Amino acid sequence: MNKYSVILGNLGNTCDRFLSSGYKEIPPKETLIRQASEIEGVKGIELVGTWDVDPSNVDQIGETLDKYNLKCVSIIPDHFGQRKWGKGSLSAKDPDTRKMALEYTYQCVEMARTLKCKTLNLWPGQDGYDYILQSNLVQERAWLMENIKEVAAASPDINFALEYKCKEPRNYCFMARASDTLLLAKETGLDNVGVCIDTGHALMGGENVAEAVVILQTYGKKLFHMHFNDNYGGWDDDMIAGSVHFPFYVETLFWLKETGYDGWYSMDQYPYREDGQGAVRESVRFLQMVEARLTDQVMAEIRELQRKGEAVEIQRWLRETFFK
Amino acid sequence: MNKYSVILGNLGNTCDRFLSSGYKEIPPKETLIRQASEIEGVKGIELVGTWDVDPSNVDQIGETLDKYNLKCVSIIPDHFGQRKWGKGSLSAKDPDTRKMALEYTYQCVEMARTLKCKTLNLWPGQDGYDYILQSNLVQERAWLMENIKEVAAASPDINFALEYKCKEPRNYCFMARASDTLLLAKETGLDNVGVCIDTGHALMGGENVAEAVVILQTYGKKLFHMHFNDNYGGWDDDMIAGSVHFPFYVETLFWLKETGYDGWYSMDQYPYREDGQGAVRESVRFLQMVEARLTDQVMAEIRELQRKGEAVEIQRWLRETFFK
Amino acid sequence: MNKYSVILGNLGNTCDRFLSSGYKEIPPKETLIRQASEIEGVKGIELVGTWDVDPSNVDQIGETLDKYNLKCVSIIPDHFGQRKWGKGSLSAKDPDTRKMALEYTYQCVEMARTLKCKTLNLWPGQDGYDYILQSNLVQERAWLMENIKEVAAASPDINFALEYKCKEPRNYCFMARASDTLLLAKETGLDNVGVCIDTGHALMGGENVAEAVVILQTYGKKLFHMHFNDNYGGWDDDMIAGSVHFPFYVETLFWLKETGYDGWYSMDQYPYREDGQGAVRESVRFLQMVEARLTDQVMAEIRELQRKGEAVEIQRWLRETFFK
Amino acid sequence: MNKYSVILGNLGNTCDRFLSSGYKEIPPKETLIRQASEIEGVKGIELVGTWDVDPSNVDQIGETLDKYNLKCVSIIPDHFGQRKWGKGSLSAKDPDTRKMALEYTYQCVEMARTLKCKTLNLWPGQDGYDYILQSNLVQERAWLMENIKEVAAASPDINFALEYKCKEPRNYCFMARASDTLLLAKETGLDNVGVCIDTGHALMGGENVAEAVVILQTYGKKLFHMHFNDNYGGWDDDMIAGSVHFPFYVETLFWLKETGYDGWYSMDQYPYREDGQGAVRESVRFLQMVEARLTDQVMAEIRELQRKGEAVEIQRWLRETFFK
Repeated sequence: MNKYSVILGNLGNTCDRFLSSGYKEIPPKETLIRQASEIEGVKGIELVGTWDVDPSNVDQIGETLDKYNLKCVSIIPDHFGQRKWGKGSLSAKDPDTRKMALEYTYQCVEMARTLKCKTLNLWPGQDGYDYILQSNLVQERAWLMENIKEVAAASPDINFALEYKCKEPRNYCFMARASDTLLLAKETGLDNVGVCIDTGHALMGGENVAEAVVILQTYGKKLFHMHFNDNYGGWDDDMIAGSVHFPFYVETLFWLKETGYDGWYSMDQYPYREDGQGAVRESVRFLQMVEARLTDQVMAEIRELQRKGEAVEIQRWLRETFFK
Repeated sequence: MNKYSVILGNLGNTCDRFLSSGYKEIPPKETLIRQASEIEGVKGIELVGTWDVDPSNVDQIGETLDKYNLKCVSIIPDHFGQRKWGKGSLSAKDPDTRKMALEYTYQCVEMARTLKCKTLNLWPGQDGYDYILQSNLVQERAWLMENIKEVAAASPDINFALEYKCKEPRNYCFMARASDTLLLAKETGLDNVGVCIDTGHALMGGENVAEAVVILQTYGKKLFHMHFNDNYGGWDDDMIAGSVHFPFYVETLFWLKETGYDGWYSMDQYPYREDGQGAVRESVRFLQMVEARLTDQVMAEIRELQRKGEAVEIQRWLRETFFK
Repeated sequence: MNKYSVILGNLGNTCDRFLSSGYKEIPPKETLIRQASEIEGVKGIELVGTWDVDPSNVDQIGETLDKYNLKCVSIIPDHFGQRKWGKGSLSAKDPDTRKMALEYTYQCVEMARTLKCKTLNLWPGQDGYDYILQSNLVQERAWLMENIKEVAAASPDINFALEYKCKEPRNYCFMARASDTLLLAKETGLDNVGVCIDTGHALMGGENVAEAVVILQTYGKKLFHMHFNDNYGGWDDDMIAGSVHFPFYVETLFWLKETGYDGWYSMDQYPYREDGQGAVRESVRFLQMVEARLTDQVMAEIRELQRKGEAVEIQRWLRETFFK
Repeated sequence: MNKYSVILGNLGNTCDRFLSSGYKEIPPKETLIRQASEIEGVKGIELVGTWDVDPSNVDQIGETLDKYNLKCVSIIPDHFGQRKWGKGSLSAKDPDTRKMALEYTYQCVEMARTLKCKTLNLWPGQDGYDYILQSNLVQERAWLMENIKEVAAASPDINFALEYKCKEPRNYCFMARASDTLLLAKETGLDNVGVCIDTGHALMGGENVAEAVVILQTYGKKLFHMHFNDNYGGWDDDMIAGSVHFPFYVETLFWLKETGYDGWYSMDQYPYREDGQGAVRESVRFLQMVEARLTDQVMAEIRELQRKGEAVEIQRWLRETFFK
């Protein structure tokens, strides 16, 4: 059985640049946690720094998670949601900002330890550039790698999952796709630095999600974490999983199982105008539906389909196996 | 019951710019026609000019169609596949080329009459431009409209379905999306000029196919014809229907029914490396599966889902209604 | 000489969904207005409802504009930035919301009259849908058209420029591209309803901006307004004009002149991390550079290039005419 | 001074899937070679296997190149243009096909030696897949790597530049972008395996070309070759360099110089409807214009712009430095 979890912050959080005050009322944090615990199959929570957790409330959050029998799956340091990171965090041009970002990451390591959480999911979304010629690409990419290396080397009990996304909030982000992020992870030379795939970021970046899984697992078992959602292909719409690209999830879950991924299946959505609990539950149910069908026999059938590679046969099989 | 048909030429024809001699052997035309007739539900054929039909073989093709009990659904004049149209046909800068293209279109009208076919499906794919500043946009768009108007006005017994596609073979094609093509059709002032939606062209152009259907039907019942296939969103991959974008087909078939479309559902694919008959059959079966589910009750359920507009409910309903 | 203007709100306003408190301090409104007035060539301002102008401050804003010798070029009603419009405004499923949206639009008409402003630039960005099957496309599109028709019919002294954008904040917006918006405008049957092109929205929607200009001008002189910015092609990055797609601006300014557009050239950007005044000034200077080069002789040269359509010659001409 | 070259085959070759017989007459090979030699600055030629060179004509081609004083810059083995490679070459499911592809690659090594050419530019465009679930991604990617490794290990005097492209002719190609191709190259463990950037492939894949350069140079000086052209961002339009994305070329040439790239600048276009010589000449002239401006002083100015990262200043500088 796969292990399902939810990013707490994204569940409640739904503003955009036109409606910065948000599309709906956000319930109190404990209500969000309770709602997550009510979704059948969900056993874990991811916490976003600042938005969800900081040193002042970390103990209380830990108690609330215990109360609802939820594990802290990862902490996502807030390297993106404050003005001080607006022009970058771990790779900012300003040395004081880089230092602050590094110190803050150490603080998140401490919070993770407090919550008995094994993973920091790093998404330095502000680290990149907007205009052509704006970045010293060699230097800034090096700063990013070196700072990740420093904190990861000093925290061997914590796994660092680097989450990539090609764009937004910067027009170009340094950790853009699976392979470039893997190169950066490998450059640290550390076993506890790997990669997180967000299915929507992969789609938006033109990747076939399953192939991103295979690349990360092939070159050193570097797939550390998975975020799930869907979109229309050109932007990070953060929709309910399976609402657009049904067959991609079949192939992705096949390869996660086939390559021995045993981490969490975490929901990462932006239900701007929807009931957050309902939107996450529907994603989990969709994935559970696919998972339930991936029996040993079906896994063997897929291997055979891949061995032959006949598109017509694959489409017929998909229709007969999944549709009424 | 919907009426299914197949574009004959696309069934056999599979070369690209790197492999111009084609990925597989093309069977003789009669074999292709027989193969089409063997697909359960297929009752019609579309013929591409030059590739499939010309004045010298039109009678023989008609007899073969009769033999296999198939109707000629449309003729697609070849305004794209010969060197003389390389820089445009009905809107070419060269007046002699425009004249040839017009005369050839009249010839296709005659062939349609011979085959008792009611529709010319115009896809002037070479009419457009490649580079910025290359086209006199006002003049060339006017030539395109005027030439279509002339032949359609002179052929009131034939419907002219204008098929749009934003790109390929030109980097920008004049008839790019549903609405601009509709504007051109309306500008002719003729009842027998309307639009053909190719689902893949719509997806590639960023349209929601169902909304393209609604726009054409709302502004004057101008949806004349439908071509079906699927792609990954950025290019005209011409794949098996439903192989990528399952829910789009549900919404599209709903609105086709809801707006009273009673034309053909024609398969338009490029099975480069696949068995052509199998690829088309699989598309038809996928669409028949969706069609079979659109009972009066399900149509009513969809209307209610649309009235409320709750995304979570819609996704649950899709899962429970279509998936095992 | 072209007339340049600036959208005041976009100059100061720079938050996104990750950094909702904004990337920088916003100066007081009068400072923004003064900054706009200091940009050489800028003679007008566009005001966004709620953000910039409401009945309580409209007189004061008018005085400030006078003080800095600026005209109010348009009011952009706030149909997008408040929670009540989160699921649509003029086409919302909820009848009370539609009524509120209509009443608010009338209020904006009054404000426009107060400011001696001739144009309402309508951008109903929340009117659309996020998920497949979520919208009653026929009904909701009809509501949108009818409400625009009602207020425009009642306000013959005001021009209504409908600004399209295919996506954001909804995954699909009803007014998506030039041609569908023109169809809606024409459906009102009113001379004072036309279309606004935002160059970035056009690029993001896959349009060649110049062709959008030509379509709107050809089918009834319906180009009412122009917004300028640039992006990388897949998203509304709202960057400095000319920072990515240099030759598009040459062709666009050519056709604006050629088709007799005599409206404003308004800057619409999101300088998230930049100095707002500087970013707008740089756009204006870029456009003035192109404009200055479009002498009668150069206009004639372009016409000749288009007549011949030789790509090699066009590229050489662009290089020799514009580059050092 | 940069070293400019031309891909001979692409100069003459211009058919597509709709017009497989080609848009124009192809001159004899010697004429093409002579035309290339006439372009000021062009000193080298790339030859495509089968199309341009095979064991039967390699000596004669060598003599012709000598006659026109041109070097053979690379051979591009034909792993894409014959029916036998239709479902893959070096990673084909069929073991006999893989064997043939490997043997053919050895043959190309021999031809390279005959022509005193140091580089094989591998573009296995048929190696990938079209449909979800069609490929055993682990196995087939491994075959691709192993076969490249075998021939490269056996040919230490030849550099193997792996050219990536995310799509076409397969819907997904295994060597898709710079970083995944670099991972594959590094996996061989061989110094003579590196990567070729085609600027259009990079743009089509969502990469900033300059960042692809930096990644390849940072992780082991693995940029072996450069192909130049331009496109509209979503497809491999193979247009004249600089015809769409002017500033990208400035940043790319800056970083090529800054990271010590001393290879060829090779033109790779598809001038379907243009004069081939003219189209290539115009690309070379555009790049020479940028190159001429990158003096020591301008290089220093760019470094300073990157150090500060102020977008407004960058745009002003670009305008004042490059435009009249």
